[in-house]
Amino acid sequence: TIFEALTGMLAAPEASALCGKSVVVTAGPTREKIDGVRFLSNYSSGKMGFAIAANAARRGARVHLVTGPVNLPTPSGVERIDVESAVEMLEAAQPLFGECDLFIGAAAVADYRPEAPVEGKIKKNEAEMEIRLVRNPDILAEFATNRKLGQLAVGFALETAGGIDYARKKLADKKLDLVAFNVYDGRTSGFEVDTNALTLLARDGGVTELPLLPKEEAAARLLDAVESLLPR
Amino acid sequence: TIFEALTGMLAAPEASALCGKSVVVTAGPTREKIDGVRFLSNYSSGKMGFAIAANAARRGARVHLVTGPVNLPTPSGVERIDVESAVEMLEAAQPLFGECDLFIGAAAVADYRPEAPVEGKIKKNEAEMEIRLVRNPDILAEFATNRKLGQLAVGFALETAGGIDYARKKLADKKLDLVAFNVYDGRTSGFEVDTNALTLLARDGGVTELPLLPKEEAAARLLDAVESLLPR
Repeated sequence: TIFEALTGMLAAPEASALCGKSVVVTAGPTREKIDGVRFLSNYSSGKMGFAIAANAARRGARVHLVTGPVNLPTPSGVERIDVESAVEMLEAAQPLFGECDLFIGAAAVADYRPEAPVEGKIKKNEAEMEIRLVRNPDILAEFATNRKLGQLAVGFALETAGGIDYARKKLADKKLDLVAFNVYDGRTSGFEVDTNALTLLARDGGVTELPLLPKEEAAARLLDAVESLLPR
Repeated sequence: TIFEALTGMLAAPEASALCGKSVVVTAGPTREKIDGVRFLSNYSSGKMGFAIAANAARRGARVHLVTGPVNLPTPSGVERIDVESAVEMLEAAQPLFGECDLFIGAAAVADYRPEAPVEGKIKKNEAEMEIRLVRNPDILAEFATNRKLGQLAVGFALETAGGIDYARKKLADKKLDLVAFNVYDGRTSGFEVDTNALTLLARDGGVTELPLLPKEEAAARLLDAVESLLPR
């Protein structure tokens, strides 16, 4: 849009530490097939990841956006790759690991997938049923573990109110550079809404509590924090 | 839109047997919560049910559309009720059972729901997990079983190619007036696409094979078939 074009000019990309950098962003939910018609998923709308991709592109970065099924337009200047499952997301993202300067895992990747998805349609004969689930690959951890010196890894942690300790643990366990902690208020806060209240936890122990912001602005503040971590 | 208004006039509602009738249509998938962020669902887009509701309204029917989560605009002249789960869909539809002349179950209601949904977010500690599922209410059967003389019940059956026998069984078991049989081709045919090839099975044994049609047209042909069953 014209508005985006103007905003893009105003953002003065040449001033950004992200200008010319290669950025990979994952976004949205993943869907994990139970059979040909049924799946497991989650409430992620993809808005946060898309806002980050859009903002990074406006800062002059080359952006790949690997996204699960969402209903969002592709941000201008962003290369979008659509996937469905966590395994597909890993397969799409992995070839980009080597050459990127920054990986932001904003997708709500399903932690589990059905162990044995069925072709066709399961008949509903039984009064009860059990689905056996196995763990999905951890795409962000995969990147963070195998990355080269200088590559940055940023993640999200959606946790219940007291869960900032989980977010800290995620930062440490996966050796991330930054974790955006997202309070889950027992409803669907953070998902399917246009605002987000993030707390940014940096690898050096720094904590930045952002107020409730439109996701576009939360994305900008997150990328400001990332820029300060980028090797100069 | 102007186009719809014109189509509406051309359809000459006063000529339709549905004119002035009360119609309830269910549409879309349902979502069955596993916890506060995760759910089970299916690939239904809601397009077929929305097309039926739109067409019935153009024929002069009073239409209630009870729909699961979809990304579709409300057809003009249709009263829309948004729900999420099968239990919610039943709760929304049941008060409409008594006064409607026609119930069309076009929703892809999840057959099962997690037995014990968890508040908050399940932690992903285990390498494997099991979800125990229990059967959901059968909304269409609920209507069909308890309906009064003269009320019509129409259902859909999405089955694999050979599954027309399942569709016939559905017609008989639920004592429906019409079943629209939808071939499931092993991919996601019938879901998330704009066309549909329906075979209409009527209670009198009549079989009408419709060609692959835009869902709007398939909806019109389905309602033509329904009109011929309506008490005069």
